Amino acid sequence: MNIDMIRAAAQRLKGHARRTPLLNSPFLDDIAGRRVWIKPECLQHTGSFKFRGGWAAISALDAEVRAKGVIAFSSGNHAQGVALAARQHGVGAVIVMPSDAPVMKVENTRALGAEVVLYERATEDRDAIGAKLAHDRGLTLIKPFDEPEVIAGQGTCGLEIAEQADELGITTAQVLVCCGGGGLTSGIALALEADAPGMRVRPVEPAGFDDVARSLDTGEIKRNAALSGSICDAIITAQPGDITFPIMHRLCGAGLVITDDEARHAMALAFARLKLVAEPGGAAALAAALFRKDDIAGDDVIVTISGGNVDAAVFQSALTQFGS
Amino acid sequence: MNIDMIRAAAQRLKGHARRTPLLNSPFLDDIAGRRVWIKPECLQHTGSFKFRGGWAAISALDAEVRAKGVIAFSSGNHAQGVALAARQHGVGAVIVMPSDAPVMKVENTRALGAEVVLYERATEDRDAIGAKLAHDRGLTLIKPFDEPEVIAGQGTCGLEIAEQADELGITTAQVLVCCGGGGLTSGIALALEADAPGMRVRPVEPAGFDDVARSLDTGEIKRNAALSGSICDAIITAQPGDITFPIMHRLCGAGLVITDDEARHAMALAFARLKLVAEPGGAAALAAALFRKDDIAGDDVIVTISGGNVDAAVFQSALTQFGS
Repeated sequence: MNIDMIRAAAQRLKGHARRTPLLNSPFLDDIAGRRVWIKPECLQHTGSFKFRGGWAAISALDAEVRAKGVIAFSSGNHAQGVALAARQHGVGAVIVMPSDAPVMKVENTRALGAEVVLYERATEDRDAIGAKLAHDRGLTLIKPFDEPEVIAGQGTCGLEIAEQADELGITTAQVLVCCGGGGLTSGIALALEADAPGMRVRPVEPAGFDDVARSLDTGEIKRNAALSGSICDAIITAQPGDITFPIMHRLCGAGLVITDDEARHAMALAFARLKLVAEPGGAAALAAALFRKDDIAGDDVIVTISGGNVDAAVFQSALTQFGS
Repeated sequence: MNIDMIRAAAQRLKGHARRTPLLNSPFLDDIAGRRVWIKPECLQHTGSFKFRGGWAAISALDAEVRAKGVIAFSSGNHAQGVALAARQHGVGAVIVMPSDAPVMKVENTRALGAEVVLYERATEDRDAIGAKLAHDRGLTLIKPFDEPEVIAGQGTCGLEIAEQADELGITTAQVLVCCGGGGLTSGIALALEADAPGMRVRPVEPAGFDDVARSLDTGEIKRNAALSGSICDAIITAQPGDITFPIMHRLCGAGLVITDDEARHAMALAFARLKLVAEPGGAAALAAALFRKDDIAGDDVIVTISGGNVDAAVFQSALTQFGS
């Protein structure tokens, strides 16, 4: 896992993934007490950065292997990213989802051309179902984060940040990244190590689900006590990955933690000041920039908005609480 | 008023206005029955294309004249665009607003550094107040649309559309533009005449406020019967401008008309599929692409989202009605 893989992924993604802009707002600068630069991956295809990793992983497969199709376990952003990337490669994608996944997510994934296989959380073993499908049909598993080509794809976001910040004359900044398993975080950290060594990545997680912050703090992988209970569902994972954690440990600053209400507040401010739709987990880094300013250093801070796939009802409740 | 003025404005705007991306979604393509390309000016500084015209007009002034400051009549997007452009030029801006303008709009305009002068709609004459201020203080009036340098600034959006479409291999398309007084519409039409002559601009207006469509149809300037009564307030004006109308008449195809509900529906789809916040008037062109498909020709259609400055309550009601 190295910078050359990220550069190679960037070549393969060219003309397929979007080069998202780097945005700002004087109103957000005022709240944060420094200049805030936003990398809106909610504007990426399928509404999250996951398309980058999906495309990178699928495009890296040997043509013969790829032609047999791919498989992923996900009811969220990874599912949609893999589904669209597979369709655009002209190959099949099987997405294994729990039967209680929201209908909208199932329908969206099917609409992107994927075959959705539902399983019963209580009685069926997801991994066994997936392994059997993969074996019987020769499908390649695309893991959500702990996979070098996926990390390389997410890292292309970091290459863009380095370029775009340089155009603005910014070479020193903390870069806050919404962090689940660490695919985006470690990918961006590797890209910045090479192209913007004056920058420092800070992972951001929801309170109570700060496995990465605690792992970084102690130097060994820590697990979350639970896997549900935060509105920031998109960035909750059991623990950092075996590949992502050593990268984060070597390159990242201390983790930052935000509350669900701070995520909602950041969503409302992204609506009002950036005209962007952020999902709760996707607003975590912006929330840290706005509401944890004493834990951040420097005149400039760069934040990812990692995704925008949020139900209307959840979005409305954030606006009701913080929208005026 | 010609293409050279637009190219000159583009040079002056470089590094100041955002080059907004050109976005798409397979879900919107399915609804529209053709490929839909979105130019999201809601992502422009101050949340609408108006920043382009404000910057272009202020930057075109002689330095001595500019130093005395500028004045604008607006309670909406033009006010914010002029206010920020003036502040970034280091000159004062006076914005004349009715005393019943929403507090949020007054506060936003002040926060962008402008001096807000309120007047009573019922008893005071806005133009007289503005004329006296302009005379006493030597301020230059920045008109909202019927002013060549403002049109030139809005036209830079058209230069970008031509470039971005060409990168996608698209040279023939109808370009739907949310249309009030015609500044954006005529500017884009002039830019495309020069750089993408296979494209045809179609103005889009709310039903009942289709002065431009009727003016184009009859070949003479027609007025709206009323100036309020549509949710698409940002694109309601009394009539097309004396400068903008001849340009539109020479270059545009027939106007398209959409309903308030179609605008709300398009807002909800921009939320779900593009992760963008569109204001009702800003969603008019997208609504036409999605819901007036029989009135549009070609495999590709390009639409502007002209702004995203919408109150949380209005946005929430659109999601409640069409958000699932």
